Amino acid sequence: GPTGDGYYGLSAAEFQTLGNKCLEARATAYCPYSLFRVGASLLLRTASPSGEPNHIITGANVENASYPVGTCAERVAMGSAVIQGYRLGSFKAIGVATDMDDFCSPCGMCRQFLREFLELETPIFMFNKQGQFKIRTMGELLPLSFGPDVLPPRE
Amino acid sequence: GPTGDGYYGLSAAEFQTLGNKCLEARATAYCPYSLFRVGASLLLRTASPSGEPNHIITGANVENASYPVGTCAERVAMGSAVIQGYRLGSFKAIGVATDMDDFCSPCGMCRQFLREFLELETPIFMFNKQGQFKIRTMGELLPLSFGPDVLPPRE
Amino acid sequence: GPTGDGYYGLSAAEFQTLGNKCLEARATAYCPYSLFRVGASLLLRTASPSGEPNHIITGANVENASYPVGTCAERVAMGSAVIQGYRLGSFKAIGVATDMDDFCSPCGMCRQFLREFLELETPIFMFNKQGQFKIRTMGELLPLSFGPDVLPPRE
Amino acid sequence: GPTGDGYYGLSAAEFQTLGNKCLEARATAYCPYSLFRVGASLLLRTASPSGEPNHIITGANVENASYPVGTCAERVAMGSAVIQGYRLGSFKAIGVATDMDDFCSPCGMCRQFLREFLELETPIFMFNKQGQFKIRTMGELLPLSFGPDVLPPRE
Ligand SMILES: [Zn+2]
Ligand SMILES: [Zn+2]
Ligand SMILES: [Zn+2]
Ligand SMILES: [Zn+2]
Repeated sequence: GPTGDGYYGLSAAEFQTLGNKCLEARATAYCPYSLFRVGASLLLRTASPSGEPNHIITGANVENASYPVGTCAERVAMGSAVIQGYRLGSFKAIGVATDMDDFCSPCGMCRQFLREFLELETPIFMFNKQGQFKIRTMGELLPLSFGPDVLPPRE
Repeated sequence: GPTGDGYYGLSAAEFQTLGNKCLEARATAYCPYSLFRVGASLLLRTASPSGEPNHIITGANVENASYPVGTCAERVAMGSAVIQGYRLGSFKAIGVATDMDDFCSPCGMCRQFLREFLELETPIFMFNKQGQFKIRTMGELLPLSFGPDVLPPRE
Repeated sequence: GPTGDGYYGLSAAEFQTLGNKCLEARATAYCPYSLFRVGASLLLRTASPSGEPNHIITGANVENASYPVGTCAERVAMGSAVIQGYRLGSFKAIGVATDMDDFCSPCGMCRQFLREFLELETPIFMFNKQGQFKIRTMGELLPLSFGPDVLPPRE
Repeated sequence: GPTGDGYYGLSAAEFQTLGNKCLEARATAYCPYSLFRVGASLLLRTASPSGEPNHIITGANVENASYPVGTCAERVAMGSAVIQGYRLGSFKAIGVATDMDDFCSPCGMCRQFLREFLELETPIFMFNKQGQFKIRTMGELLPLSFGPDVLPPRE
């Protein structure tokens, strides 16, 4: 089996949980317009409030009759994490899963949303429906990116 | 004090919780660009998974260096609720709070996002920083709206 | 036939042009995902740069494989107008047309986008595919709205 | 001076026009909230309707009091191009310019929007305020991207 190194620094248990949780999260999607379910999972560096290791926050896509108003799995998950107090430095890895045979990456809008809270080295695991995966880092998926450092927060 | 009727069908305890939770949720916002904190609370018709009455799900705004990529308090809260399985029929009332003296309403994008999951009669309470409020229903805030009934889901 | 008053202050020629142009603009849509064509027309108060009266700027929906990344007819039209220098005070009326029998209103996100540049009294004409219409003002479609006056521009 | 090859297949005149037009387009921005002006230019493969070579369509950012409702320079330009009938195969290069010393890339949302209409080899020129530039292709800026081929249009 793959070693810790093969998982970009995740333990086998962490990797297993990350993958299972984004695959499961697909079932929580609301996607009557695209019928395209996506699940996302965020692995935190710290244990959950109740002390569980392999701490995961999930999301799924939530569509709207006005298509541009809907949102994606990755942003639902990260929005939820941010209001729980997690920020840059809190995340160890991201998982995304669809119902396709192919590996589906986060859309550009989600890459930008994630970029605000992830290090460039954070691994993003893209799972197909069989649970096979492809990995890219945040920096690889959004090269030359435009983050909080470029547009300085207000004084 | 106001009676149940004065609260659009909410009990005094429900109303109190709805208001407190959206005012508190402001503290969870990530808004370095606007410095404009917004909190949102959704009151569910059903008790929480752990059996608590006055079941509330909250959200706050999460901004991005690319402004259009950020999201609002109301959508973070509703996205979280939807992936927990709540849909049309699940919500009793919505609360929104800011740091202003004036009453601030949901933006048009959030009204559209909420419209997918709220009845037209659902009350939306808008709180100012002193905790005073103004009420409008979903249907009043987005008249002649464009919902799931107009654009039928795929077969 | 309807009088000038019936057209909310538009002349018969202005009204005719506004309606025709949004109905025609549907043909310029890129909507392979929804197959739902929308056209929009903005009537300017001033003649076109080449001296034409009944000056119109049009738009149509432009969708994306990532649904939330697409945009609507009204925002394409208004974006185009704004970069041509038109702002609050420049617009006399808006037209929106679809392929439906029913009258379709702008989505909440578009109402918010338009709100930045329209007076609350500006009429929005919603045309069905037969060219029949319904009218509401900007203020009626987005009551208690959140505009540039609420969130003051930076100093 | 740079040769045609140095411009990724653009002639010197085309490159000059592309750069000038996105730098000029900054002046058409509406950005009272960020005070961050961006201009974009799209170089078409075909002459303009009036027969001009070096055919360019421009855009600039158009912000909104509700930040997520605003839009970026690249999407205004491309939205305008699409409703004029230009699609995949129509574009030779993209230019983006800001008021910064640094080179600013399109945000992830714009990369996704552009992806629908650009070939992966299309060059994107990023200009700083001095007019110096950096180049990346569409495929380099959005690797492993999610385009119209992944989510097939409706039958
Ligand atoms: Zn996405
Ligand atoms: Zn909003
Ligand atoms: Zn719209
Ligand atoms: Zn952008």
